Amino acid sequence: MTLRSIDGGVTAPLGFRVASGEAGIRQTVGPDLVLLASDGPASAAATLTTNRMRAAPVLLTAESLATTGGRARAIVINAGCANAGTGAGGLEDARAVVEAAAERVGCSSTEVLPASTGLIGSRLPVEAMRATLAGFALERSTERDQLAAMAIMTTDTRPKQVAVSLTLADGREIRIGGMAKGSGMIHPQMATMLAFLTTDAPIDADRLAAILRAAVEVTFNQVTVDGDTSTNDAVMLLANGQAGGSNLEAGDEAAFADALEEACRHLAISIAQDGEGAHHLIEVRVQGARSDADARRIARTVAGSSLVKTAVHGADPNWGRIAAAAGRAGVDLDAEAMRICIGDIPVYDGSPVDFDGARAQRILAGDRVPLLIALVDGHGIGVAWGCDLSSEYVAINSEYTT
Amino acid sequence: MTLRSIDGGVTAPLGFRVASGEAGIRQTVGPDLVLLASDGPASAAATLTTNRMRAAPVLLTAESLATTGGRARAIVINAGCANAGTGAGGLEDARAVVEAAAERVGCSSTEVLPASTGLIGSRLPVEAMRATLAGFALERSTERDQLAAMAIMTTDTRPKQVAVSLTLADGREIRIGGMAKGSGMIHPQMATMLAFLTTDAPIDADRLAAILRAAVEVTFNQVTVDGDTSTNDAVMLLANGQAGGSNLEAGDEAAFADALEEACRHLAISIAQDGEGAHHLIEVRVQGARSDADARRIARTVAGSSLVKTAVHGADPNWGRIAAAAGRAGVDLDAEAMRICIGDIPVYDGSPVDFDGARAQRILAGDRVPLLIALVDGHGIGVAWGCDLSSEYVAINSEYTT
Repeated sequence: MTLRSIDGGVTAPLGFRVASGEAGIRQTVGPDLVLLASDGPASAAATLTTNRMRAAPVLLTAESLATTGGRARAIVINAGCANAGTGAGGLEDARAVVEAAAERVGCSSTEVLPASTGLIGSRLPVEAMRATLAGFALERSTERDQLAAMAIMTTDTRPKQVAVSLTLADGREIRIGGMAKGSGMIHPQMATMLAFLTTDAPIDADRLAAILRAAVEVTFNQVTVDGDTSTNDAVMLLANGQAGGSNLEAGDEAAFADALEEACRHLAISIAQDGEGAHHLIEVRVQGARSDADARRIARTVAGSSLVKTAVHGADPNWGRIAAAAGRAGVDLDAEAMRICIGDIPVYDGSPVDFDGARAQRILAGDRVPLLIALVDGHGIGVAWGCDLSSEYVAINSEYTT
Repeated sequence: MTLRSIDGGVTAPLGFRVASGEAGIRQTVGPDLVLLASDGPASAAATLTTNRMRAAPVLLTAESLATTGGRARAIVINAGCANAGTGAGGLEDARAVVEAAAERVGCSSTEVLPASTGLIGSRLPVEAMRATLAGFALERSTERDQLAAMAIMTTDTRPKQVAVSLTLADGREIRIGGMAKGSGMIHPQMATMLAFLTTDAPIDADRLAAILRAAVEVTFNQVTVDGDTSTNDAVMLLANGQAGGSNLEAGDEAAFADALEEACRHLAISIAQDGEGAHHLIEVRVQGARSDADARRIARTVAGSSLVKTAVHGADPNWGRIAAAAGRAGVDLDAEAMRICIGDIPVYDGSPVDFDGARAQRILAGDRVPLLIALVDGHGIGVAWGCDLSSEYVAINSEYTT
């Protein structure tokens, strides 16, 4: 079974089409509305924010997936307004937009999943969105994919896409496509992580949900920019089976799960890399923890530490901050047996070790900063991705007034 | 029972003396060593860091309190070196310093509790500290208290002290004194929170530990500057009973607990106020949560949110960030019934409300920014203190290279 990169994004899989345009939702000009649809019915799965304050589109997506038992035809996405904290009126707005999208696609409104990102507390311009949706012509092309990935950006500096192809044991080829937006905001209210994935693989909704959850756990959930979980975070996956054949069997399903994880990882890393004000991607790898979950938690804590983030920003080989962050992760670990490497340079081994500081600084000054924490408590492994904390982050998030 | 502020700090209670001086531990000039001693035996309690990577002085303090069952005569404190990540050698160093202090005081070495703050990974200059300790003349005065509070500072911008007097039901007067250091570092490695409290109240070690833990829970544990728990955090309390009389009875003990909590709160607020790069104290009050613990957790999450901290820095009445931070606190809450006030201005009530933005900005621009989150889930209340996130924080923690 061969996995390879292919061109495009969400319509790289067979039987998906997309359109994007401008409905005046952003306070600046530019496309802000996307409709992504499958030609036929698709299995659908989503992982939604754990924030107790859930935006209207998140509530509606959860409701629709429960109603349909994991079937969907389309996803309608807007930037410029999070439709969060908007009460019952906001939920009605989301329903109206979903109905307009369903009309355009020709499906039931429970088969359209909504997603929003932008300002918390403002209302959607429903009429303008309805008009824009009515004029949408859905198409399948790499150009359209690129335009859609750009339309969902807020303060992201570049679109984030992925497309892979996987050849199964029986020679069938299936494809996975995806796009994401990261931490950025046209009005700096909230960093919302949104990702939309498509596949033409034939697969049941139940299995799809399990596979998506597992992939999200080790990819998107391991990204941290500023520790603030959005009210709108959502990862959605549609599988329309248009690659043909019967549902994936065990071996093929495992290969599909690996391919999906790879696609999610690609998008997750893109998000960390493009964190607000970020100059460096920080990749924290933990091994030897009591469990994978422990390892992931330690990695995420280190990647999210303000002191580690500022140390990377200043290219300071400050292993004390890395060790201290690992120690406060809320995980049982033997700190005296902890080893830390910056890139390939051991800097701590239960007690300080001599190392080439100039070389460590050069690693820290790179675009991608790999940190390794090796424990002796078990066989758990985990990775997390973050970014440095810069004055630009503070500026982006404070030099604006509502 | 009357509680009032009095002059001084750790030697305001009867029977405590202090000395401070320079042992060359800091890489800059200035006093960096403090010895605080009780004239006679004292009950002792400490709350120590939950970080799994515990500094040598933290390990030794825990060991000594276990050995003595909560008795101590003195505390020896240094700035400039955290003695953390230093392995077995660091523990030997801490023992040697404690022995020198015990010799000076004339007690057993298990009766001296050590505390350190500063660079992680560097070793203590034991000989220089021994020589400095040998020359120390212990005294009781407000001047000495001030010098001691200054000697434990790192990047703190001002000394932090408290002293209160409490008149008990039987007319006895007892005193509580204290000093603390906050988030700052001569080498920006780690923000260490250290606080040392004294009292001349007669009270058993067991009761003392319970009372201290309860006070710390709602004061020091509710302070957040950057979310990074130090390897060296410690709050210590000595009670030498020199106010006279028998051990405090129930009513007096409750009054003492309140007075101690007040003293701890004073020091905790001083720490948040003097957070690295901070211009504003943020005080987050939560009411109507399911429990006090839930309320405290929500308050701490909001006070620690990078997006809330940058919003306060920019005087942006951005209730969306406050609501979203409350929602991700990991606590069950009814977000639709949540109300938020900035100062006395309601800004959110389940859905957006109109408010005077200019007046909200003026409140946010103040030295002390009060935020209120009112829930309808129960009767739990809690407060947390934090500070704004500024470019200075980033500069302090990144523009230095080890």
